Amino acid sequence: MKRSFLAALCCPFLALLWLGASTRTTNPVAPIPVFRKDARILFQGDSITDGNRGRSADPNHVMGHGYAYSIASRFGAAFPESNLAFMNRGVSGNKVSDLAARWQRDTIDLKPDILSILIGVNDQGAGVPVEQFERDYDKLLADTRAALPGIRLVLCEPFSLPVGGVKEHPERWVDGLRTRREAVARLATKHHAALVRLQAVFDAACKRAPADYWIWDGIHPTYSGHQLIADEWERVVRGLAKP
Amino acid sequence: MKRSFLAALCCPFLALLWLGASTRTTNPVAPIPVFRKDARILFQGDSITDGNRGRSADPNHVMGHGYAYSIASRFGAAFPESNLAFMNRGVSGNKVSDLAARWQRDTIDLKPDILSILIGVNDQGAGVPVEQFERDYDKLLADTRAALPGIRLVLCEPFSLPVGGVKEHPERWVDGLRTRREAVARLATKHHAALVRLQAVFDAACKRAPADYWIWDGIHPTYSGHQLIADEWERVVRGLAKP
Repeated sequence: MKRSFLAALCCPFLALLWLGASTRTTNPVAPIPVFRKDARILFQGDSITDGNRGRSADPNHVMGHGYAYSIASRFGAAFPESNLAFMNRGVSGNKVSDLAARWQRDTIDLKPDILSILIGVNDQGAGVPVEQFERDYDKLLADTRAALPGIRLVLCEPFSLPVGGVKEHPERWVDGLRTRREAVARLATKHHAALVRLQAVFDAACKRAPADYWIWDGIHPTYSGHQLIADEWERVVRGLAKP
Repeated sequence: MKRSFLAALCCPFLALLWLGASTRTTNPVAPIPVFRKDARILFQGDSITDGNRGRSADPNHVMGHGYAYSIASRFGAAFPESNLAFMNRGVSGNKVSDLAARWQRDTIDLKPDILSILIGVNDQGAGVPVEQFERDYDKLLADTRAALPGIRLVLCEPFSLPVGGVKEHPERWVDGLRTRREAVARLATKHHAALVRLQAVFDAACKRAPADYWIWDGIHPTYSGHQLIADEWERVVRGLAKP
């Protein structure tokens, strides 16, 4: 009993050891099944995804500084043989309607195998009715699946923490973003998308450090907050079955 | 024998399990002894460190996109109770003389506990003699230790890979940067600094993917290349004894 308990404990570590040997990074990284060879992974969204990314061809800056960068650098370094192509097309200030206006060029034409979307906070800020948000987002996802039938969709919840404007106007942000998260969850079910639940992650993190340690103005994560997004995204996407 | 081997294998995993429980991140991170509570960690250097960091107060952008961002977000998220303060003052195009000109304001006044410096490639590009590079760098480090006696220094090797201009002019880059690396190694010994050897890391990585997968123009790493720096930096700094 004792020995089998010890052996059970060892299994994940032995797996990591093996992976460490195969990937040869200091920090061993377990592979993600849907990140198959030559996979194209696109991040779409607003400023949180944008992360001040460079618009030039300089590959040093194309991912911005945020969760998209963290995921790309971690898996790009660990699995060079997989030749993963990470892309970021987040644009500051975008609402769902802004995504729709540039969708062909910035998403469909890029032919992603995995498409991650984090959107909603600017729809909330601009007062776009939740019904319209959900209807437009639904059309965007339906159009995407029609154009790229094999695509894997990852929808990220919009989130906030009580800092700055969010703390001053909770009636505007807390309920509004909650109803948008419910809409995103419905869309994830309808379109067979993975759902990355981020509000609960940020809420839990506030038990360990003040809210502004994670999200400096209530909306935009700090570098530590972005790591929480990257970790949860990885956890959810790791669970997706291989295509 | 078998059992003790198994137990030995288990130890690091059990440590990670415990750490995972204590840090509650999806990807457990082992603590770094010199990252004690309220530690201030400053990254200094040129464009590779700069990473297009924001110059405003927006904490979303202060670390740039590069190895400094990766280290800050990873440890900021894993150890919020430690209240680590990560700072980036890398400036594109800087040589050692440029660091010296802004050292008081951008380094001494920030009172770092740990100071990491990655410099040398622009001295090489500008043809600053290696002797002068070493002499000026030596003075910078001596002044720093005099002003901040308890500081822990981390010196990163300048590096290149045969891509673009580096490939076209190997006589200019390969030998030149090698002699600067030797100077940095001497300075690390003299000033009791940790030395992060990066050239060997990039050379080894080229066995797994083409050079431009890691460093797009011979000098500036891609997001995958930056992760190699972050991993090696972490490995070396993890080995430093607690202050």
